[in-house]
Parts: sequence; C-alpha cells; structure tokens
Amino acid sequence: MKYDVLFSGFGGQGIILSAVVLGRAAAMYDGKYAVQSQSYGPEARGGASSSTVIISSDPIQYPKVLEPNLYVIMSEAGFLKFGAEAPESALMLIDTGLVQSRPQCRFIEIPATMQAKEVLGKPIVANIVMLGALVSATGIVSFEAMEKAVLDSVPKGTEELNIRALNLGRDIVQKGGDS
Amino acid sequence: MKYDVLFSGFGGQGIILSAVVLGRAAAMYDGKYAVQSQSYGPEARGGASSSTVIISSDPIQYPKVLEPNLYVIMSEAGFLKFGAEAPESALMLIDTGLVQSRPQCRFIEIPATMQAKEVLGKPIVANIVMLGALVSATGIVSFEAMEKAVLDSVPKGTEELNIRALNLGRDIVQKGGDS
Repeated sequence: MKYDVLFSGFGGQGIILSAVVLGRAAAMYDGKYAVQSQSYGPEARGGASSSTVIISSDPIQYPKVLEPNLYVIMSEAGFLKFGAEAPESALMLIDTGLVQSRPQCRFIEIPATMQAKEVLGKPIVANIVMLGALVSATGIVSFEAMEKAVLDSVPKGTEELNIRALNLGRDIVQKGGDS
Repeated sequence: MKYDVLFSGFGGQGIILSAVVLGRAAAMYDGKYAVQSQSYGPEARGGASSSTVIISSDPIQYPKVLEPNLYVIMSEAGFLKFGAEAPESALMLIDTGLVQSRPQCRFIEIPATMQAKEVLGKPIVANIVMLGALVSATGIVSFEAMEKAVLDSVPKGTEELNIRALNLGRDIVQKGGDS
C-alpha cells in the first residue's frame, strides 16, 4: 500500500509539522519509507499552505505527490486550492469548523479546532487532533509510532497536551466522527 | 541563479527546521520559489538525517535535488553519507566542532555548536548559527528575509535567542570563519 497524503490549511496551524511527524512515524517507528515535501512560490504569502508526504512499504522512486489519495484539509482556502479536485477514490478528513465546502470523494468531518479549544483549551493542537483522527481512520501508521513521532517533534513541556490531542482525534473517529 | 542546498546532521539538531526556514525566507519574503523535502527509510533511525531545499527565481519543475551546490554539514556521519562526494564546484559550510573530515570542494569552517554554547549558552541554536553563516557567505536570501522566517518558525519566547544566533553566524563569516 502506498499513501500519498496532502495536508492543507493556513499559516500557523502546523501544516508542515503534521507532514513531518507523519513521515517520521512511518520511517522511524513503522519500518516504512517516506518522502515529505512542500513547494511554494511568492503566492504562498497569506494564502493556503500545503505539505505532502508519501509513505510506502517499498523505496520511493518518484518523490513528488501527483494525485493524493488522502487529504487533511484545515481551511476553506486550502479546500478550494487543493481539495476541490480530489479524485472520487480519495478519502478526505475535514476540520468542520474551518471548512464549509464538501468534496466529491468520501470524507470524515472532524471538529478538530473546536474540540481542541473546548476539550483541551488549546486550539493550536488542532493539527495533532487531525493526525490522531487520520491514524484511527486509515491505519496509515500504528498509533504507537505516531505517539513516538509526536513526542520527538513537539516543544518540551507540551508532550502531555499533544498526546491528549492525538487521543482526542482518535476518539472522535471511533465515535463516528461529527457526521 | 538556482541553489540546491543539502543540510545534514543528526536527529535533534533541527536539520529539517533549517531547510523549512530557508525555503520560507525565499518564498515568503524574497519573492522566489522553493521546494523543501526530506526522504527517509528505516535506516534513518539513529543515522545521519538530511533535508534539502531548492531555491530559484523561476518556478521549479523537477522537485528533487540531484546534485547540491551548497552543503551545510553538522555531523561526521552526515559528511560521510552526503558530503564526501560533493562536486568540486560546490560550497560547504562545516560545523567544525562536529565534523573532522574536509571535502574536495571549497568549504568554510563555522564553529557553530561551540560558539552557540559559549556565546549564547544554548548549543541547540547551532542550526540557526549555520543559517546566519549561510546567508552571509552566499546571499542565497536577504538577511531580512531570513530574520522574518526565523521569527515565524521558532517557539514563542525564543525569538531573541534565535536572532542572536543568526547574527552570530553572520559575524563568524564576516570575520573570516574559523580558518
């Protein structure tokens, strides 16, 4: 199985960190190969930011994501720029409080930013909530691998908060999402 | 001018962050295009980590760095894995306290980790010292663009420390490196 994952949102949500953490979980703790990248031009300023990661059991030859099969969308602008054209076979996780549109493909509604604020008091960890939801919905990496990669990557002193965010995302999916 | 930059070191030095910050400086604040990426397999665990960024005045068609023309090397293992084969036309910045080998190509010795520890009391910002040195030695992005990208990217409360680290790297180069 090869996963081509695209994250999109706005600056400050930790979109790049999400992709870095997912790639790290796969390569460091799940014995897989990963290529993580983002490209930007002058239009990136103030617009939708995006980041991708390819995860595969086999070495990855061509490093560019051409057509993602998994999307994590955390802003309406990100949806319009990167998610609106998603193929019908893809799966999309949507932060419901921030994205009004819905795609043609299968999607799961995750109230990540809202719940990060209400349950944890920290909307900043919404991206980690989305990662927990992604792992739970797809099994793209093991939950244990994701926990380790999160602990490696977040600032000291925020470990417990981030693990709670990861668990929150998993619980939202296991209870059937928001839909 | 097109720059293909490779950063290498060990886990925990902020090798990925360095490339992300450089790409951000170029694209967000200097009107250029950037593609930043890292790939890893199961061997990444405990080994040399690396990260690349391509910076160009023109849109970038092929996103993979094939042969870097700039290297920032922060561990001996990283030198052996990624730097030893650098082409003679390349330029390499070396953290002298951590890398014993020297390349065929032109190089600049930067005692980044040592000075980050002695001058700033925080060896953790050695990667930002190297970024300051890189900007000063090459003009790959403007110093102002780099300052803004660093301020966007570092944890709250560490802004002043990181700007001092950037200035320290610049000063080391302007005083003629360590050689």
